[in-house]
Amino acid sequence: MAVHQASHSISTPGKGLQEITKLVARELAQSRLKRGTVTVFCQHTSCSLVTMENADPTARADLEAWFERLVPEGDPQFDHTLEGPDDMPSHIKMALTRTSETVPFADGQLLLGTWQGIYLWEHRRHAHTRTIVVTVVGE
Amino acid sequence: MAVHQASHSISTPGKGLQEITKLVARELAQSRLKRGTVTVFCQHTSCSLVTMENADPTARADLEAWFERLVPEGDPQFDHTLEGPDDMPSHIKMALTRTSETVPFADGQLLLGTWQGIYLWEHRRHAHTRTIVVTVVGE
Amino acid sequence: MAVHQASHSISTPGKGLQEITKLVARELAQSRLKRGTVTVFCQHTSCSLVTMENADPTARADLEAWFERLVPEGDPQFDHTLEGPDDMPSHIKMALTRTSETVPFADGQLLLGTWQGIYLWEHRRHAHTRTIVVTVVGE
Repeated sequence: MAVHQASHSISTPGKGLQEITKLVARELAQSRLKRGTVTVFCQHTSCSLVTMENADPTARADLEAWFERLVPEGDPQFDHTLEGPDDMPSHIKMALTRTSETVPFADGQLLLGTWQGIYLWEHRRHAHTRTIVVTVVGE
Repeated sequence: MAVHQASHSISTPGKGLQEITKLVARELAQSRLKRGTVTVFCQHTSCSLVTMENADPTARADLEAWFERLVPEGDPQFDHTLEGPDDMPSHIKMALTRTSETVPFADGQLLLGTWQGIYLWEHRRHAHTRTIVVTVVGE
Repeated sequence: MAVHQASHSISTPGKGLQEITKLVARELAQSRLKRGTVTVFCQHTSCSLVTMENADPTARADLEAWFERLVPEGDPQFDHTLEGPDDMPSHIKMALTRTSETVPFADGQLLLGTWQGIYLWEHRRHAHTRTIVVTVVGE
């Protein structure tokens, strides 16, 4: 049993889902571990993680549009507006999705379903540099 | 320290919550490990996991009805409709709940609360065969 | 590789977010482990976990108010009302947030972002005693 761990910086161009599956798979390969779990952790509260369909891009576009409608900018109920109208909706979208995701692996391969991809979801309008931590625990 | 891992196929009859706590507990028993964490992972993007009250069935029925009202089929905003009107709502309900859940164990027993059960939540209308991966990491 | 595990009772005064980051960090320190993951698990279905901004309290107040508006008490659609009008909304808010959160650590320190705190979120109106389980897996 061993632990392999690495941090990665990811540039986001603003709101949207960015696939990070390959990055996680590469880190798993570097660990040379065969069986266990990989935990992906997002070190921010205005972006988040989600494991989503990686086939048809319209599924991701619909997901984003639905969340945008559920948590619109400019909600008159918000007091936390100093960092911009997209800040509080970002925190809410983060809370509704995930900060950590733990994915099993076997034979050194992520045990994702055929249509599953791991995504970093930027909720802010503007470009950001985000950090995720990948931790492989296994044998 | 060791890893024990197994995949399970689960038949779902269509929309609804199906308890998988016993299945997870049996896999934990097979591991013969005493202390650590069990990660349950759902290999799909149109069904999901949730740890929910296992006492009164009306709690689960209300949970389902609430999600159905929040994310109804036939939303005119959706473009991803090729696989049916229940497909895009399924992805959204999945994103709002969980793909992975990590539960601690001690003395070879899941440390769930008195009223907690682990559920696979099918979001599609029709029957499906779903796969979950149970990974036990511990000593 | 080793496992360190402990349960903690937390008194909540009713609805609201209560930071538990220090409690988790203390448990990590007690483990004397250097690198791995800490899994926090909430043993209840009417309170939950969330990793949220720990700087401006208005962000947490807005988060709570938004969830309260999304899942109001007294929804005529609810059948599960025997335990009070705040019971079913509590289960739904729990399902929308998290029961388990897995946070990486290195050099014996939680790898949280600058503005991240781990919170126990009480969804019931009245004071409760809640139990969380902290499990450290690492080397």
